[in-house]
Amino acid sequence: MTIVSSVRPPASPTGVSTSALGALQPLGIDVAHITGGWWAGRQRRIREVSIPDGRRQLEEAGNLDNFRIAGGSLEGEIRGPVFADSDVYKWLEAAAWEYGRQPDEGLLAEQLEITALVAAAQEDDGYVNTVIQIRGDRYRNPARDHEHYCAGHLFQAAVAQSRCTGHDELLEVAIRFADHLVRTFGAGRREDVDGHPVVEMGLVELYRQTGRVEYLDLARYFVEARGHALTTRYGGNATYLSDRVPVREAATVEGHAVRAVYLAAGAADVAVETGDEELLRALDRQFASMTEAKQYVTGGLGARWEGEAFGDPYELPADRAYAETCAGIGAVQWAWRMLLATAEPRYADQIEHLLYNAVMPGVSLGGDEYFYVNTLHLRDGAEADNERSAASGRRRWFDCACCPPNVMRTLAQLGGYLATVDERGLQLQQYAPSRITGALADGEFTVAVQTDYPWKGAVRVTVEAAPGGEADLALRIPAWAEGATVDGQAVEAGSYAHVRRVFNPGDVVELELPLQASVVTAHPRVDAVRGSVAVRRGPLVYAIEQADQPDGVVLDDLRVDPDANYAAQHRPDLLGGVTTLSFPAVGPDGQRVQLTAIPYFAWANRGIGPMRVWIPTV
Amino acid sequence: MTIVSSVRPPASPTGVSTSALGALQPLGIDVAHITGGWWAGRQRRIREVSIPDGRRQLEEAGNLDNFRIAGGSLEGEIRGPVFADSDVYKWLEAAAWEYGRQPDEGLLAEQLEITALVAAAQEDDGYVNTVIQIRGDRYRNPARDHEHYCAGHLFQAAVAQSRCTGHDELLEVAIRFADHLVRTFGAGRREDVDGHPVVEMGLVELYRQTGRVEYLDLARYFVEARGHALTTRYGGNATYLSDRVPVREAATVEGHAVRAVYLAAGAADVAVETGDEELLRALDRQFASMTEAKQYVTGGLGARWEGEAFGDPYELPADRAYAETCAGIGAVQWAWRMLLATAEPRYADQIEHLLYNAVMPGVSLGGDEYFYVNTLHLRDGAEADNERSAASGRRRWFDCACCPPNVMRTLAQLGGYLATVDERGLQLQQYAPSRITGALADGEFTVAVQTDYPWKGAVRVTVEAAPGGEADLALRIPAWAEGATVDGQAVEAGSYAHVRRVFNPGDVVELELPLQASVVTAHPRVDAVRGSVAVRRGPLVYAIEQADQPDGVVLDDLRVDPDANYAAQHRPDLLGGVTTLSFPAVGPDGQRVQLTAIPYFAWANRGIGPMRVWIPTV
Repeated sequence: MTIVSSVRPPASPTGVSTSALGALQPLGIDVAHITGGWWAGRQRRIREVSIPDGRRQLEEAGNLDNFRIAGGSLEGEIRGPVFADSDVYKWLEAAAWEYGRQPDEGLLAEQLEITALVAAAQEDDGYVNTVIQIRGDRYRNPARDHEHYCAGHLFQAAVAQSRCTGHDELLEVAIRFADHLVRTFGAGRREDVDGHPVVEMGLVELYRQTGRVEYLDLARYFVEARGHALTTRYGGNATYLSDRVPVREAATVEGHAVRAVYLAAGAADVAVETGDEELLRALDRQFASMTEAKQYVTGGLGARWEGEAFGDPYELPADRAYAETCAGIGAVQWAWRMLLATAEPRYADQIEHLLYNAVMPGVSLGGDEYFYVNTLHLRDGAEADNERSAASGRRRWFDCACCPPNVMRTLAQLGGYLATVDERGLQLQQYAPSRITGALADGEFTVAVQTDYPWKGAVRVTVEAAPGGEADLALRIPAWAEGATVDGQAVEAGSYAHVRRVFNPGDVVELELPLQASVVTAHPRVDAVRGSVAVRRGPLVYAIEQADQPDGVVLDDLRVDPDANYAAQHRPDLLGGVTTLSFPAVGPDGQRVQLTAIPYFAWANRGIGPMRVWIPTV
Repeated sequence: MTIVSSVRPPASPTGVSTSALGALQPLGIDVAHITGGWWAGRQRRIREVSIPDGRRQLEEAGNLDNFRIAGGSLEGEIRGPVFADSDVYKWLEAAAWEYGRQPDEGLLAEQLEITALVAAAQEDDGYVNTVIQIRGDRYRNPARDHEHYCAGHLFQAAVAQSRCTGHDELLEVAIRFADHLVRTFGAGRREDVDGHPVVEMGLVELYRQTGRVEYLDLARYFVEARGHALTTRYGGNATYLSDRVPVREAATVEGHAVRAVYLAAGAADVAVETGDEELLRALDRQFASMTEAKQYVTGGLGARWEGEAFGDPYELPADRAYAETCAGIGAVQWAWRMLLATAEPRYADQIEHLLYNAVMPGVSLGGDEYFYVNTLHLRDGAEADNERSAASGRRRWFDCACCPPNVMRTLAQLGGYLATVDERGLQLQQYAPSRITGALADGEFTVAVQTDYPWKGAVRVTVEAAPGGEADLALRIPAWAEGATVDGQAVEAGSYAHVRRVFNPGDVVELELPLQASVVTAHPRVDAVRGSVAVRRGPLVYAIEQADQPDGVVLDDLRVDPDANYAAQHRPDLLGGVTTLSFPAVGPDGQRVQLTAIPYFAWANRGIGPMRVWIPTV
């Protein structure tokens, strides 16, 4: 792959990860809107339910009081984990994107009110971390204390606020903190890395927003310093802390899944901004290794509860899947940066796969309950021995509440993932009813997308404004979409279909993606699901949940025939409207039953009960 | 089942768990000797290597210095976990049994020297726990601090010392501590239970040794008080701490495996001594549930690293098996108490199964390296991210060093598990070259057992002394031993074969146990090993280890035919002398290879490399 080092065009003002140096450039959420359909419904829930409820939860859990205490406006005891501030920053980021998507003065006022709390808590030298400030042990244990981690989320929130609301109050806090970090850390200064990456992405985005190259330099330092046992001086476990191997030497991902993918995403930012092709190749290799041997069929990442870790290659137990919602989100961020850098459609495939099957299972259809851990199998009689266990059901919030605001910010910025531009034209990366404008050299290229995707495979793209001269409209054909057509012509799965011509307003391009249900089997080394199949249709992985089956069916005792007919039926009445799949199975005494599968993301919305993604065939 | 409430005969002076009220009575290690063969070799290693090395490790890790510091003879910082004292007590117990097995004045002197350290550390009111004494937070958090746990191990060690050496110095310490516990805890006094059971077994054994009924009463209190959320007041997790359900109401085992089986063993002691048949029935039901749905084919217990827990029914991943060595030992203790109480041979079957396949894998053939966790599958390229990981190889010692001295005390007392007596005669429970004397009403019944078991199935029992009149010689026929014969007559597997007659010195009884290799499949709900088989022969479960296979064979890519010939060959040169099994397999490209399996207990004695117990067939 080649990093295209073009002249830097103006960053799209409200883009997600606004790199201008990759093969593709992102579009801001001001020019890429989801206008309807399934994703619009999910975004509406985030706006109407999740964000307001999140604010309440942050008040109840003490995260906001921590800022008041650190800022001197409240007396009291600090509450929550050492990374409590990061939940506030992710909420602020979600609110900023949501304001950018659809302005609302109440939502802005809330952001500015909380921003003022953050500013009041900031120390004179720029440092802010309320738990540490009150404990009084700044930088005592970087492997443990998440001080850079919180800074990284602050930076991301500040950039989003600046881009989406025009307000720079949080950006000013961020710059003061970043300047403090630049003065304090790096080669020849204090040589430390945080136990939990994310500051790398935050610093690079702050660099993109401000143009201050010292932030990029510090991000690069934090990436390069890993793998040299800086964290183990504090008693940390190097594998867990993404510190066992230098990033550019690693062959795969390992250790704590969220840390690993956040680090990789930040390293991708650094690679693109510094033109470091070796580093980008290493990340490409690691991504491929991850998807080959350390990713669930749902896209979920992290096979171990112990250490929230990836685990060994092909160690992918369905029942004990960790598959943290945040790991899915971090992988979306990593894939997005790799897509921009390389223009490889497999990264856009992964974004789609992760969003539907690894991120969205993490939030209830109602928008106010979450899964932290996303199991692929809940047995009958499973113990609810942990608030994160599936057997405990979805939860309003968690003691470690990283996932809920992470879902919010991801859904609020979703428009930014729809499409990209390059010098030749516009690339449609994700399919949803939407309106997208790409600014090309010869003028704006605006398209309206109409579709019932992911339930139906027809996607109709209508040109509303066309640039002068020939332009390229590229349509991602997912790797599963064998038999897809564009305007009736067969196109290749796992590639972009290019329509290159002079476009005029009113022109229509018709994409047809075949959405047949099919069964998939795992790599033969995945012992945990040997002799089993999973069922998918288009981008969606399916699950059988107890609630949909005939009375008396015990999910743990069924066998299915992989060659059976898996019949799709759209059910507008069910779970907000889903397409189900119906197929025969055999019970332990040979009795035949007809099973109904639902999209995996929709499970556990009718109470909690047995569920499985992988179904035995033998 | 019925608890036989006979008149209490004198407890066998050096017995393991010397209940006199069950259906069977135990024999002391003074009258039940292993005289040769495989187990004698293992016991020799414990004596010559493990116990001396354990003493060194306890010095190096600070456990003994903790006693010196608490006793005032040394200044320094406390080291090790809060339960550090228990490792010393288990070592003392091992040394006591070992002295009883074969007296040695040096070994006695060491015990008395360490006993003096313990006595010197004991406070005036009887309390002793060096870590807590130095920290100064006695009984601050019973759910966490293991104070009763350490007491329980002290009591077990003290009883062993008294029974096996005749010295009561440690017993006096134990009585002072037990009296303190009686004054402090119980209904109407301080109502608390320890987060880690074992004090129940310790108190009952101390009652058996001293006749002081208040110890039994307190043990009963500790058993009955569980399941009433006493530990959760301290922030503990009730499931983890065996405190979610009252023992007599529990349907299965759950939570931390070692805690669960220790509690069950202590509850069995209480049930027998108090004639509590309801409680015994509950324990019988729990044991059956455990073996049905929560036990590995190796006997290993505990499917989760997270919380060292049993996990859900049929959740038994081979690769992430926890199967802590201590859990296997605790289950032996539980099974032994159930065997004495009920005379059901399935409990003796379990003891054999656990000892060979769940306990002995935990110690190297050399006797100086241990596994804490006993995986059933080590992949090629597995991460060694934890000192307990199989990928880290066997270890000299652990930060949490519960397992090594637990193995030592179990091996040193092994003679005590060989046989039992009842009013009618002598029951041979385990087969090894041995000499056993049971004191019956009509005189002593002494037999010498000759066998090459577990490699060969012939067991020759020669009567050396016979009681007057008719006596019953019962031979356990393991449940796997279809086709067994006694003196040429077919006998039923899974039962006792009774030879009832007037015996005379020189009489010989010949037992023949068929040791064919066979494959076993798991319950179909055990998803983790679907489409796979394990190989066993007689009491031994086998494993394929990289070291025995032809060059280039990748264990993770093989398939075997369950109907193939699994050919046994005794290899005196290999791993101290083992019978191997040879059978064909097919690689991913269809190439045929001949695999060699070794007994699972013998793996990881030639460095660390890939291994699997379950082998795919599909």
